[in-house]
Amino acid sequence: MSGGIGPERLSLNTATVREQWDLAQCIEGCARHGIAGISPWRDKLHEMGVDKAARAIRDAGLRVSGLCRGGWFTESGAINQAVIDDNTRAVDEAATLGADCLVMVVGGLPRGSKDLPRAWDLVEEGLARTLDHARKAGVKVAIEPLHPMYAADRACVNTMAHALDLCDRLGDGIGCAVDVYHVWWDPALAAQIERAGRDRLMAFHICDWLVPTRDLLTDRGMMGDGVIDIPHLRGLVETQGFEGLNEVEIFSDRDWWRRDPDEVLATVVERARTVC
Amino acid sequence: MSGGIGPERLSLNTATVREQWDLAQCIEGCARHGIAGISPWRDKLHEMGVDKAARAIRDAGLRVSGLCRGGWFTESGAINQAVIDDNTRAVDEAATLGADCLVMVVGGLPRGSKDLPRAWDLVEEGLARTLDHARKAGVKVAIEPLHPMYAADRACVNTMAHALDLCDRLGDGIGCAVDVYHVWWDPALAAQIERAGRDRLMAFHICDWLVPTRDLLTDRGMMGDGVIDIPHLRGLVETQGFEGLNEVEIFSDRDWWRRDPDEVLATVVERARTVC
Repeated sequence: MSGGIGPERLSLNTATVREQWDLAQCIEGCARHGIAGISPWRDKLHEMGVDKAARAIRDAGLRVSGLCRGGWFTESGAINQAVIDDNTRAVDEAATLGADCLVMVVGGLPRGSKDLPRAWDLVEEGLARTLDHARKAGVKVAIEPLHPMYAADRACVNTMAHALDLCDRLGDGIGCAVDVYHVWWDPALAAQIERAGRDRLMAFHICDWLVPTRDLLTDRGMMGDGVIDIPHLRGLVETQGFEGLNEVEIFSDRDWWRRDPDEVLATVVERARTVC
Repeated sequence: MSGGIGPERLSLNTATVREQWDLAQCIEGCARHGIAGISPWRDKLHEMGVDKAARAIRDAGLRVSGLCRGGWFTESGAINQAVIDDNTRAVDEAATLGADCLVMVVGGLPRGSKDLPRAWDLVEEGLARTLDHARKAGVKVAIEPLHPMYAADRACVNTMAHALDLCDRLGDGIGCAVDVYHVWWDPALAAQIERAGRDRLMAFHICDWLVPTRDLLTDRGMMGDGVIDIPHLRGLVETQGFEGLNEVEIFSDRDWWRRDPDEVLATVVERARTVC
């Protein structure tokens, strides 16, 4: 598990250079730096066009480690048709891209609500309805537990244990996206990764937790600049047989979003070798 | 559980007006607003002098819902005598004040370390050694699980489940301080409060989670201004027989720390009646 990883085991989440590059530039950048995969956000995908993007990704020989993101089930306080339609489209886009999974950011509290159990129920209903279509389309659905600091406004599923409880009830075709930033602190993490097992470990995202963290959303660190023991966490998922790519997703408006994106990718590749 | 609470069931954590008032002013403020209790931070306590403060608090007829704080076991990477001595002094100060408990903020990762299990072990050792003295002094020790966003730099115990696992191993005289700000998001919370039971529920802290939260440390909200269902959480601890005060602890350098402290206390009293 030690010794770091080469770019042939990396994927670039487009959020990492979202301020600098469009999707076509991200695809070219991955090819230029030998990065094996990509994980597009849907805004960049729509901007380029899904079919054109799928072709360009295929032509560049890149694997699609995930599509970010479906979900966002809770905001209006009910599962309405617009939310289901949007998630259906996300499933279809993931199928077109041949993505390893569709990553789900499930949504926080409904607007004006303090009723967390109600939000949890909405998430389960939304996932169940999306999953019906995803199974037919052959797309795996990956719940991404977000850090508890996002419980109110982004995702009310904040631990692997909660995500796996949902998976237990929802059945086949659904699992977890493990992002070290969101779960590194959890004393139950090792046990829950083991509980998940190979079939439900659908994505592994890396970056780092900075001390201090100056913003709740956009102050993630480059691997090695923070306190997360990434090789240890990578070891936990690999012990279960996870063979997906190590997807680099860094939100950083004070640092990495302001740099030359080729410098960002070169740093990603170097840090993957030395500290991941 | 509904209908709100009167000031005779409130305690003022001095952090709520820490920029405006010293401890003597906090004591007078509580008396003026009919707030039944106080929970001093140790810096303000030392500034006033422990014996003088204990006398003034007694003369004002206030209950001491807690002393903030002991702990901070991990920073140097070992449990050294200085840390034990400081916690011993904190225990003695809590005894002098007749505090309901000594609140423990256990510390994050050791400086330069990414080894979370090592930090957990240090915390357990530090608590065990402090507890020996606390039992003799008749002081209850309350582990405060902090929000996971503080795992690196303030406290690596971030859930009630983890705190109670420690309590199970450490035995009598140790329990939890439940601060709604730190634990409101946790899907295991209700079960863990039930697991804790009356004897291990030693403190209940209230404030609110703002959306958006603009700073990880100093952007807590006044009760009612955020998304936490405080009456529900209060109901959970009261169902277990908790009879302590509702301690108001608000870190707010953009808002409440800039206001007239009598306005802050009047707002606390009004919000306790209307939204807690």
